[in-house]
Amino acid sequence: MDKPKLFTVGPTYVNEDVREEMKRQMFSHRSSDYVKLHSELIEKLREFLNTENEIFIYTSSSTGCMESGVRNMISDSGTGLSTICGAFGKRFGEIIEQNGRKLVESEVEWGEANRGEQLDEVLSKNPGVEVVTITHCETSTGLLNPLDELCKVAKEHDVLTMVDTVSSMSGTRIEIDKLGIDFCFFGVQKCFSVPPGLAIAVVSKKAMEKAETVKNRGHYFDFLNLKKYNDKNMIPYTPPIPQMFGLSKQLDMIIDEGAGNRFYRHSKISARVRNGCKDLGFGVFPDEKYAAPTLSCISNPLEVDLAEMNSKMKERGFILASGYGKIKDTTFRIGNMGNVTLDDVNEMLENLEEVVG
Amino acid sequence: MDKPKLFTVGPTYVNEDVREEMKRQMFSHRSSDYVKLHSELIEKLREFLNTENEIFIYTSSSTGCMESGVRNMISDSGTGLSTICGAFGKRFGEIIEQNGRKLVESEVEWGEANRGEQLDEVLSKNPGVEVVTITHCETSTGLLNPLDELCKVAKEHDVLTMVDTVSSMSGTRIEIDKLGIDFCFFGVQKCFSVPPGLAIAVVSKKAMEKAETVKNRGHYFDFLNLKKYNDKNMIPYTPPIPQMFGLSKQLDMIIDEGAGNRFYRHSKISARVRNGCKDLGFGVFPDEKYAAPTLSCISNPLEVDLAEMNSKMKERGFILASGYGKIKDTTFRIGNMGNVTLDDVNEMLENLEEVVG
Repeated sequence: MDKPKLFTVGPTYVNEDVREEMKRQMFSHRSSDYVKLHSELIEKLREFLNTENEIFIYTSSSTGCMESGVRNMISDSGTGLSTICGAFGKRFGEIIEQNGRKLVESEVEWGEANRGEQLDEVLSKNPGVEVVTITHCETSTGLLNPLDELCKVAKEHDVLTMVDTVSSMSGTRIEIDKLGIDFCFFGVQKCFSVPPGLAIAVVSKKAMEKAETVKNRGHYFDFLNLKKYNDKNMIPYTPPIPQMFGLSKQLDMIIDEGAGNRFYRHSKISARVRNGCKDLGFGVFPDEKYAAPTLSCISNPLEVDLAEMNSKMKERGFILASGYGKIKDTTFRIGNMGNVTLDDVNEMLENLEEVVG
Repeated sequence: MDKPKLFTVGPTYVNEDVREEMKRQMFSHRSSDYVKLHSELIEKLREFLNTENEIFIYTSSSTGCMESGVRNMISDSGTGLSTICGAFGKRFGEIIEQNGRKLVESEVEWGEANRGEQLDEVLSKNPGVEVVTITHCETSTGLLNPLDELCKVAKEHDVLTMVDTVSSMSGTRIEIDKLGIDFCFFGVQKCFSVPPGLAIAVVSKKAMEKAETVKNRGHYFDFLNLKKYNDKNMIPYTPPIPQMFGLSKQLDMIIDEGAGNRFYRHSKISARVRNGCKDLGFGVFPDEKYAAPTLSCISNPLEVDLAEMNSKMKERGFILASGYGKIKDTTFRIGNMGNVTLDDVNEMLENLEEVVG
């Protein structure tokens, strides 16, 4: 790993091979060269994501996908329900409202997981809800929500699911088709370790059918227009070709590693981070039963000066992530997404011990 | 110039230095390193664009900027007027409608320019219009609209202006502040010769004030949110850091070349392309008084088999652009955006003569 060593929660460290691949000379996005790149990328994504659903390439960050899901899947004056356990779930709800749809919230305390039982109750009280948003990995609290039970409840109520897999996809197994996820999305700069500028969404047939009935879909994020071009292995507007090359290369490496190996690696390393931090007297912020396998949110019962700690770690070449949102000053975060190895984490923990010791 | 030689209309040929710059290792977009990159880029853009207006960085293509302008500058049930002389002006109007706003069109035949007199007439008949869209360089017909007279008329009617400078910015002088343009935008993959994935918009104080009165601005393209983060030298969501490095590097080279030299170079080379094509018996599709300085749309009175011609040129290493939209089969286009030199064009024309001779 290059110095400085990135334990951020995205953008994450990018391999030399991927960055080299992104150096290619440009060509027209209406050429046969582009069609080849697009179709190969979709094919590799389909293999790795193990889905039969439509796969869209977005020239945007993941936040753009959130806007796209909201505009295509909730009727003009319809209602979305946001399950919230941190900053990113909260923001998903705000995006629903900012796009003129009605919002119902199903919220728990930061650090707790959204659970099926509560979702069931809120959906029962709000029969008009069309779509449920789920933040799979809540990056602000380092928590992984139980996708299986939340999707099950959503299906029982016959509402569509939009799942934010931004900081979980490729770091843990997500059975898109089996769980019946209607719309899930991620940026490439987290567990995929590609520079930012490109987002991917996976869209079910039901979600596509719903979009046909929604008027206020806009232009840029319109499912129907994206589908029309996707059928020709293109996108409606100019795509970020360098990141597409980068992701294509990275997917080769990911498929080589093997999905199971990759998920196990993330899980083992994040456990090492949490245990190492607890050994130093820190705590784990979220309910540890739901601790995320891709980043750790660490609480500070020691009342260490976290700004000073992060700054000293940076001097030693280790970049950790600050807390986020309302727990910004009382927690810090350590990402282990993508290329981070167990050796990297051990070295980082040794240094952390010296810094706070 | 690398083989193949790109005379496309974007993405355009990218210098080795710029591609090398894009290889940098990633870092957090909430770090001081990012703030430095963002602020330096805004500063260089401000110098080159010579504007006091707000400069936004978009994680999108230019089409995203169109959606942003429409959603922020036209009231929820307000009306936009689109001046149309080709495919991209037409699409701008469609984006207005797809976002639930009303549309008035001021259209001329493909190949003709939108003129102030007609705009004045249409605006007089439609006093409710809030915003006029202008396609500065209409890429489908290779035509540069007279921005000065169109902006003057818009101001006389006290309507805001949204100007598509996608294939003109940095290829010809655009006096944003002097003309009083309220919103103009471009992608980096045309005359700036940076790989695609990043778009820039310049927003007037009046446009910002208008946005405050518009409800349905959404989230991803919201001026007010973009401004809030821009004030901290950040953007609300993850930006395409490699393209930002590329653009920053390219702006150094552009500023070194000098704006006047750069504009003169584009103008001289496009005239050479048109004259060279006329010498071979081709025609110039648009009214030549308004021919664009950044690309040429060439008509085919010779009835050469254009697909075969383009294919033979490709074999020789020269990539030309096909026609677009309803003149797809009867025209072809030759871009001279960004890094194309007079020597490149002369070599290309010699080969074209051999291919069609």
